[in-house]
Amino acid sequence: MKKSIFIEALEWRYATKKMNGEQIPEEQLNNILEAIRLSPSSLGFTPYTILVIKDQETKEKLLPHCYNQSQITSASALVVFAAWKEFNVEQVEKYMQEIATTRNVSLESLEGFAANIKGKISNSSPEELLVWAAKQTYIALGFGLAAAAVEKIDSTPMEGFIPAGVDSVLDLENKGLTASCILALGYRDEEKDFLSKAIKVRRKSEELFVTI
Amino acid sequence: MKKSIFIEALEWRYATKKMNGEQIPEEQLNNILEAIRLSPSSLGFTPYTILVIKDQETKEKLLPHCYNQSQITSASALVVFAAWKEFNVEQVEKYMQEIATTRNVSLESLEGFAANIKGKISNSSPEELLVWAAKQTYIALGFGLAAAAVEKIDSTPMEGFIPAGVDSVLDLENKGLTASCILALGYRDEEKDFLSKAIKVRRKSEELFVTI
Repeated sequence: MKKSIFIEALEWRYATKKMNGEQIPEEQLNNILEAIRLSPSSLGFTPYTILVIKDQETKEKLLPHCYNQSQITSASALVVFAAWKEFNVEQVEKYMQEIATTRNVSLESLEGFAANIKGKISNSSPEELLVWAAKQTYIALGFGLAAAAVEKIDSTPMEGFIPAGVDSVLDLENKGLTASCILALGYRDEEKDFLSKAIKVRRKSEELFVTI
Repeated sequence: MKKSIFIEALEWRYATKKMNGEQIPEEQLNNILEAIRLSPSSLGFTPYTILVIKDQETKEKLLPHCYNQSQITSASALVVFAAWKEFNVEQVEKYMQEIATTRNVSLESLEGFAANIKGKISNSSPEELLVWAAKQTYIALGFGLAAAAVEKIDSTPMEGFIPAGVDSVLDLENKGLTASCILALGYRDEEKDFLSKAIKVRRKSEELFVTI
């Protein structure tokens, strides 16, 4: 892979404000979801669950809770990153079981690592754990945005929504989850989206970076 | 760009625990930084500053504040994402000026957008703004991790450090900044890093994703 092709893909992408309602091919959606699945998280614990909304009726229900931003209903799919709000020992043990099975190592050899995570859970407040979990979803959001650009699929990262409303529509509260951020995937409506031809604004390197 | 090459790059990467101290070529570092620069943020406001640490002495000073994790000193470069802790109207006006200049539009046409950001700042507590800024750094961290994988440069995403200590070494407090996360960039030490040959553990698609 030539480096410049990746950078070009990132230059091509922008936060699409108007989408045209066309569906993206299943194979490309799956590539984007696979990139999201491969994204790292603190301690590898992946303290989130991801909802992939293709159903139009559900998108319509989400719309008022997302300040009526039109991407919600004109996107092909909405990827809702739902952070865990509840933590317990069973989640840690399940994760240890996954490591043991995948790497063919004993659960005993993972006891120190398990104690680390259990310690983090018991030594943090629910609010701290939620912020921690939410931050991890933003790494995954980054991977999803980059993967979409590689696939030449348009995308919008969204945090402008009312979590309680989104949680209610998706029945997240009863599952110990809360919506953290949303990735809308689809195709830009070139004519109606004034941003589609706008020059990208980013802070200049010499202002953003300080080299030591 | 074939989709599979990007996914393969993400499969190749892992959180490198031992690096060998070799320096990465300047051109590749610049490509990774450019991907970070291109990453989106809420309202495009980029509420963070990024320190790129190449100086070995500074890395040594950071080490004890990062629980002596060896990547800190054996990485070629540390990218420290420092979230803004202080917000003011001047930052918003500077951003509006950047948009006006880049897109050749009037400042008047941006007044509604500016009011949006000013409203967010004045209606949020300092703690809320810091969490908001920190989350944006995680998108940029994601872009940096993906770009490093594309460049076949090893990397480690790190949040296990004592912010006050890192802030003190880098003199961030006096600049209204605080370290949010760190991206270590370098080359894996294949022999000493037991993780270099370990199978990647990720939650299975059918458990991570819920499709509606």
